[in-house]
Amino acid sequence: MTTANHFELLGRDGAARTGRLTTPHGVVRTPAFMPVGTAGAMKGMHWREVREAGTDIVLGNTYHLMLRPGAERIAALGGLQKFTGWNGPMLTDSGGFQVMSLSELRKVSENAVTFRSHIDGARVELSPERSIEVQRLLGADIAMQMDECVRLPAERSDIERAMQLSLRWAERSKRAFESAAPGAMLFGIVQGGDVPELRHTSARELVGIGFHGYAIGGLAVGEPQSVMLAMIEATAPQLPEGRPRYLMGVGTPGDILEAVARGIDMFDCVMPTRNGRHGMAFTRFGQINLRNARHGDDPRPLDEASTWPSTRNCSRAYLHHLVRSGETLGAMLLSEINIAYYQQLMHDIRNAVSNGTFEDFRASTRAGWAHGDIAPR
Amino acid sequence: MTTANHFELLGRDGAARTGRLTTPHGVVRTPAFMPVGTAGAMKGMHWREVREAGTDIVLGNTYHLMLRPGAERIAALGGLQKFTGWNGPMLTDSGGFQVMSLSELRKVSENAVTFRSHIDGARVELSPERSIEVQRLLGADIAMQMDECVRLPAERSDIERAMQLSLRWAERSKRAFESAAPGAMLFGIVQGGDVPELRHTSARELVGIGFHGYAIGGLAVGEPQSVMLAMIEATAPQLPEGRPRYLMGVGTPGDILEAVARGIDMFDCVMPTRNGRHGMAFTRFGQINLRNARHGDDPRPLDEASTWPSTRNCSRAYLHHLVRSGETLGAMLLSEINIAYYQQLMHDIRNAVSNGTFEDFRASTRAGWAHGDIAPR
Repeated sequence: MTTANHFELLGRDGAARTGRLTTPHGVVRTPAFMPVGTAGAMKGMHWREVREAGTDIVLGNTYHLMLRPGAERIAALGGLQKFTGWNGPMLTDSGGFQVMSLSELRKVSENAVTFRSHIDGARVELSPERSIEVQRLLGADIAMQMDECVRLPAERSDIERAMQLSLRWAERSKRAFESAAPGAMLFGIVQGGDVPELRHTSARELVGIGFHGYAIGGLAVGEPQSVMLAMIEATAPQLPEGRPRYLMGVGTPGDILEAVARGIDMFDCVMPTRNGRHGMAFTRFGQINLRNARHGDDPRPLDEASTWPSTRNCSRAYLHHLVRSGETLGAMLLSEINIAYYQQLMHDIRNAVSNGTFEDFRASTRAGWAHGDIAPR
Repeated sequence: MTTANHFELLGRDGAARTGRLTTPHGVVRTPAFMPVGTAGAMKGMHWREVREAGTDIVLGNTYHLMLRPGAERIAALGGLQKFTGWNGPMLTDSGGFQVMSLSELRKVSENAVTFRSHIDGARVELSPERSIEVQRLLGADIAMQMDECVRLPAERSDIERAMQLSLRWAERSKRAFESAAPGAMLFGIVQGGDVPELRHTSARELVGIGFHGYAIGGLAVGEPQSVMLAMIEATAPQLPEGRPRYLMGVGTPGDILEAVARGIDMFDCVMPTRNGRHGMAFTRFGQINLRNARHGDDPRPLDEASTWPSTRNCSRAYLHHLVRSGETLGAMLLSEINIAYYQQLMHDIRNAVSNGTFEDFRASTRAGWAHGDIAPR
């Protein structure tokens, strides 16, 4: 099996790149941020709002969906896009990461991971082949190989063992993927923890196997940002220029900006929706905690210059009241406000890379965050 | 003080009526259903969806809003419409009912109710005058007099005492209302429990005082539907033809249909949003419980003939999954689906009354509910 290239690089500025990735369900402009619709829903948002906020592609969690409502059921209902009403590109993870973080009594063997469902305690086996089958049943535009992710800090021997297992699973994933739908893509995942040599080995071996794109996994698991950026710097140059690079589970706007500067094209993170549910807004002034009393009488919006209506129109006083009162609408508004901010950031990044002004954009954006929120009234 | 008439009766069909009520924030088509935005938010819905679903007017709860964020604060922020972004007519209740149902250590005296806030335990006094002041500060288009509502069943002596107290509070409310904004309205509330003579007395005395509209209170508090309808029949004929009649806290679609048939023009109820949060959908096939396993594999929408997009497009399987998974989106979708169904019902009622076909509409609508949901696949 060869891996057709669906990715077109449109521009470069330093190590930063911009491009377009063509999937069966539409085009993804890169650098791209993928909001996470864990269990077939974006928490607190309608799918039309996800789209209107500037989202090209979303992520669905294989682990959650295989347990409920079940991959075969979703396939019988026409796939995840038809099931949810999100009529756009979708990437699914392999399920491996959530098995590690959410399930009980898990056991990793050469062949598969066995675990008990966190929903009903049922015993489930997930192999690289079953993961690919589930992702095919879900109708993923982009499937991920199954891998084993080690939490940092960890012993080098543990990191190396998991990285080598992930490489063997990468080969099995690719073989299993041959029956996938036309145009669907499979990404390999570079592991190797915080050890540059292991990252090199993992990347080189994966490129040898050949994937439509390459993810960097096992980061944003508790290590400092400096370690994460060092691992990107160790990995990205090992990956083929013409394939998309996806940094899994990242991150803050600052993480994204720095990762783009080091050649990353795709991101996913629950942070904008999760923090939104906890009263936090992402803005060009940095993160703003709407619970703070200073907002209680403030009629000003979060950012009067924003292109997103709720960001420009809802008063801080109203958002403060909704958050303090535990009203669902507070979580709904802050989730869309945060997704819109992330997507505006990606839009601005793409433009800056296209125009060769990425370094200026990066500096002015960081300065805005560092300057902080507007003064209280 | 005279009470200008803002209500125009446009049609009658039997005892059923249709009309238009002009408020400072816009026109309300009657019969009207008012969704309840308790604490300055419609649970699980954006205001734009409330409007798009066909809502002319919403209800805000004085009790909740005076405790948090506070009436003076909302006034300083430009009133409840500006604060929330709901740019339409708003009715506020007096706060009396929630004092009875939510607060602790309440004490009713001739002058006022004193209670402890359910939020922070602070001691608060609510008099008829303060209630009107709070409603003025909130910017209500329609304010309600403060009353005392007795839970049924109750002794006649208790019902009569509360009814007489409510009449004295009605007079005080009207005097206090004189400083209200131009165009704002004040409604009196008929009490008298399940005793027709007390309802007659209450209605006659209120009409003597003179209000912009008349509410029937103290129903939908646990009594059978037959008692509620009998009380409407005892009360409505005592009220002036040319003023709107509002049945407070009601109810199911069936309650509304029967109350319209007896001359009621306005309703409010938390049922469409509350039941939506619990997985229940209101449809022309009656109430549907999306938790039921029969929906799990059903690709069909709730009602393929609905004019509301989510009702027509979201599969039962998806709604079932969202409800079972506890996803916020399930509550969001079912809340809008239910509000849209209620508003479609009101729209159809208004048309039927205008066209003189209300009895046919009532019969066919009841037959649809009685027939029940479409057969499983």
